[in-house]
Amino acid sequence: MSTNTPIEKSFAESSALAAQTCVRGFRFAGIASGIKASGFLDLGLIVADGPSPCAALFTRNLVRAHPVKIAEERVLKKNVVAFLVNSGNANCCNGSAGYSAALETTSALAEFLGCEAEQVLPASTGVIGQALPADRITQALPQLIENLGEESAFEFAQAIMTTDRYPKVFRTTVEKNGKTATVLAIGKGAGMFHPDLSPAGELPLADEDALQGLHATMLVYIVTDALCDQNDLEAALEISADKTFNAATVDGDTSTNDSVFLMASGASEVRLDADELRQALEEACGPLARSMVLDGEGAEHAADITVSGLGNDAEARDIARVVATSPLVKTAMAGKDANWGRLLMAAGRAGVSFNPEKASVFVGEICICRDGVPTTEEDDRAASAVMQSREYEIRLVLGKGPGSFTYVTSDLGHQYIDVNAGYRS
Amino acid sequence: MSTNTPIEKSFAESSALAAQTCVRGFRFAGIASGIKASGFLDLGLIVADGPSPCAALFTRNLVRAHPVKIAEERVLKKNVVAFLVNSGNANCCNGSAGYSAALETTSALAEFLGCEAEQVLPASTGVIGQALPADRITQALPQLIENLGEESAFEFAQAIMTTDRYPKVFRTTVEKNGKTATVLAIGKGAGMFHPDLSPAGELPLADEDALQGLHATMLVYIVTDALCDQNDLEAALEISADKTFNAATVDGDTSTNDSVFLMASGASEVRLDADELRQALEEACGPLARSMVLDGEGAEHAADITVSGLGNDAEARDIARVVATSPLVKTAMAGKDANWGRLLMAAGRAGVSFNPEKASVFVGEICICRDGVPTTEEDDRAASAVMQSREYEIRLVLGKGPGSFTYVTSDLGHQYIDVNAGYRS
Repeated sequence: MSTNTPIEKSFAESSALAAQTCVRGFRFAGIASGIKASGFLDLGLIVADGPSPCAALFTRNLVRAHPVKIAEERVLKKNVVAFLVNSGNANCCNGSAGYSAALETTSALAEFLGCEAEQVLPASTGVIGQALPADRITQALPQLIENLGEESAFEFAQAIMTTDRYPKVFRTTVEKNGKTATVLAIGKGAGMFHPDLSPAGELPLADEDALQGLHATMLVYIVTDALCDQNDLEAALEISADKTFNAATVDGDTSTNDSVFLMASGASEVRLDADELRQALEEACGPLARSMVLDGEGAEHAADITVSGLGNDAEARDIARVVATSPLVKTAMAGKDANWGRLLMAAGRAGVSFNPEKASVFVGEICICRDGVPTTEEDDRAASAVMQSREYEIRLVLGKGPGSFTYVTSDLGHQYIDVNAGYRS
Repeated sequence: MSTNTPIEKSFAESSALAAQTCVRGFRFAGIASGIKASGFLDLGLIVADGPSPCAALFTRNLVRAHPVKIAEERVLKKNVVAFLVNSGNANCCNGSAGYSAALETTSALAEFLGCEAEQVLPASTGVIGQALPADRITQALPQLIENLGEESAFEFAQAIMTTDRYPKVFRTTVEKNGKTATVLAIGKGAGMFHPDLSPAGELPLADEDALQGLHATMLVYIVTDALCDQNDLEAALEISADKTFNAATVDGDTSTNDSVFLMASGASEVRLDADELRQALEEACGPLARSMVLDGEGAEHAADITVSGLGNDAEARDIARVVATSPLVKTAMAGKDANWGRLLMAAGRAGVSFNPEKASVFVGEICICRDGVPTTEEDDRAASAVMQSREYEIRLVLGKGPGSFTYVTSDLGHQYIDVNAGYRS
C-alpha cells in the first residue's frame, strides 16, 4: 500500500527532485544567517498553513539544551504552526541568556507569522557552551519567511546540517481509498549519535533504558498531509522511533539536543489510524536512520546487527545494542575483519542469558561461527569480502526463541578519530 | 604501615630489581613453548611451596574460555599449588577439544609437581577460536619447571603478555609487629579491557553490574607471604577489585578470559585480617590497573575520572563509568581538547539524577566549567596544556553529596584503530 523513496543522493537544482519533496499544507526554507562562520546555510523554517497537531520526542539526556526544554513544554499545550531551527550553535550550557534567546527568536517569528509564540517550536544543533546570536536570527527572519516554498525541503535539510556530508530527505506515500497521503522525513545527525528518545512530558532519564541510553545530536522533522488524531501521532511516533532512531548508533553518545518532531496537516484528507501511520513512519524513518549512520562521522560502513533466537524482542535488543556499540566490533568492521570472536564476546557481556555453545554468527549469507566454534578459513575470507561493501548485515542466532531485534551501526576507523579528536562539539 | 613500589619500567637483567620480586613461598618461571609464532615467551608458571589458600575472580562475560570454567571449579574445592598460564591462544570457543587440552596440560603438570590436578589452576590469553597446542605445552613442562626461581617473576610477567608493551609487576609491603609481609601483583591486559569480575561460584552475568559490564583480557596473579584465612582472602580481593580492576577501562569490552588470582603462602608469619589485606591489595592493584590502562592498546594518556557530589558512591560510579567509556570523551583526550561539553553530556546520559546547572568540571586544577557554563578561554587553554601530560585527572563535581568514585581510562586515538582494525583477537 505504500512506496518508499530515498531522496538523499543529490541536492542539485533538480526541479523534478524538489517537486518530490512537496507535502500539502507545509512550506520550507533554509538560509544562511551568519551563525556559521563558513557562511553555509544555518537557519531553517517549516511553516504549516494552519495550526496542526504535532507529536515530539526528546533526548533522555539529563543535560538538555534550552530549545529542547521550550519545545517540550510547548508541544504539549497547543497545535503547532512552525518549526524554527538553527545549526552551528546548540544553545546549550550557555546560561539563562540562551533560554531568553530561544524565547526571543521564536516570539519574533510568531509575530511575523501572526501566531502565538507557543505555536513555534525551536531547535538548535552545533557547538555547545556558546552564546546564541539571537540578533542575527531575528534579523534574518524576513528573508527566511520570504524564502518559504513548497519545494524547498532540501534547503531546510541543508540548513540543519552540522558535520553531515549530505542532506537527508526520505519520502513515503500511502494509498487509501484512491487518495494519496505523503510522509516526508528530514533529518540531520552524524556524530554524538545514539538517540535515546522519550515522549514530551516524560522525565529525562531515571529508567533502565536511559541508563543504557547512549548519545548524538539528531534532529528529525517529519511532516505529513495525512489526517491524524493527536493521540495517534504520539503513539505512532513513539513506537516507530523505537525501531528506527532508537535502534541506530554511531558512537553510543546521546546528545543534549536530540529531537524528533511529527506534524500532520490533514490536507490530503487521507485519514490514517495509529497503526497505518506507524507503518508509514517506519518506512520513511528506517532508511533515514540508516542514512544518518552511514553518514556517521568518519563512517565507511553501516551494518545491520540482527540478533535473534532470544526469549523476547527486549532481550534481543539488549544484546544488539551492546554488539552495535562495542569498540572492538566497530574496529573489526573498519578492518573488514569477520571477527566472530569479538561478536560473541560482545553478545556475552550484555547481561542476557543464552547458550554460547549453540550460537551461530553470519556476515551476509556466510556462516562464520556455528555452535560456538568458527567454521572454515574459506568462510572467513568470504565474509571479509562481504565486509568490503558499504552496507551489509551481521546476524547472531543465539537460540530458538521468537525474540529478535535489529540495530544499525557504523564502523570505527581513523576518520572517526580525525573528526572527533579535533572538532569541538 | 606500607610502601608501594612500582616495578614496571624495565625487565632488564638487573639482579637488584629481580630480588625485589621475591615473595617467600613462591617460585616463578616463564619460557617460550612455541605457541607464539614470534618465539616470544608464552608459558608461565607459579608454584607454591605447599598447598595454599587461594581466592579468584572471573569475568562476568557469558562466553567464557575453558580454563576459566576449570579454574573456577577448582579454586572452590582445594588449596592451590600452581598457576599454569599460556599466552598466544585464549583456549576459548574452540569446542570440547579445548576443554580436554586444559585438563590434559594441568594433569601433566600436577604429575611433575606431585600434587593433584585439581590443585593446578589454568589460564589462557590470546587469539580465540583456535585449537590449543596441548602437546607443545606438555613437552615444555620439564623445561618450565627447571626454570622455576624465586627471582623469576619478570619472566612470568613476560610470558603472559599479548599486546602489552611491557611486563607489569607491582609490589607492596606491610610492616606489622616488626615483621614484613610482601604482596606482589603481576598483570597483563591491554585490549578488550574493561574487567567486570565476580567471585568464583557466582553466576556469570544476569545482574545490573554485568549488564553494564564492559570487556578485555586481563590476567592478574597476586601472591603474598602474609598469613590469611581463605574467607579473608576472598573478601579482601572482591572489595579491592571493585576499586581497582573493576574501575579501569580501555575500550569497554569485557573479555571471555579475565581472571584474578590471589594466593597466600603464610611464609612471612605476618597475619593480616581482611581489612589489612584489602588495603595492601589496593596499594598494589591500583597502580597495576592504571599501568594496564596506560599500556592500553594504542593509549597515549591515562586519566583518572573522579565524579563527586552524588548521593552515594554507587551513583558516582555509574556516572564515572559512562564518562570513562564515552568515545567522544576518549577522542577528546586524544585531541588534548578540554571538552567540558562532552564530559557533561556523558554524565547526563548515565541515568543518575543531578542538577546540570550546578555542575563543575576540572582538568587537573583548572576549572573549565562552573555551574553548567564554561569558564574562560584562558582556562580552556590551560586545561589543554594539562592534557598533554601522560597522566592527569578529570573531576566532575555534580553536587554536594558524599558519594564519589574514580575510574581510570585511556584516550581513543589513531593507534587504537591501528591495533584493533587489524589484529585478530
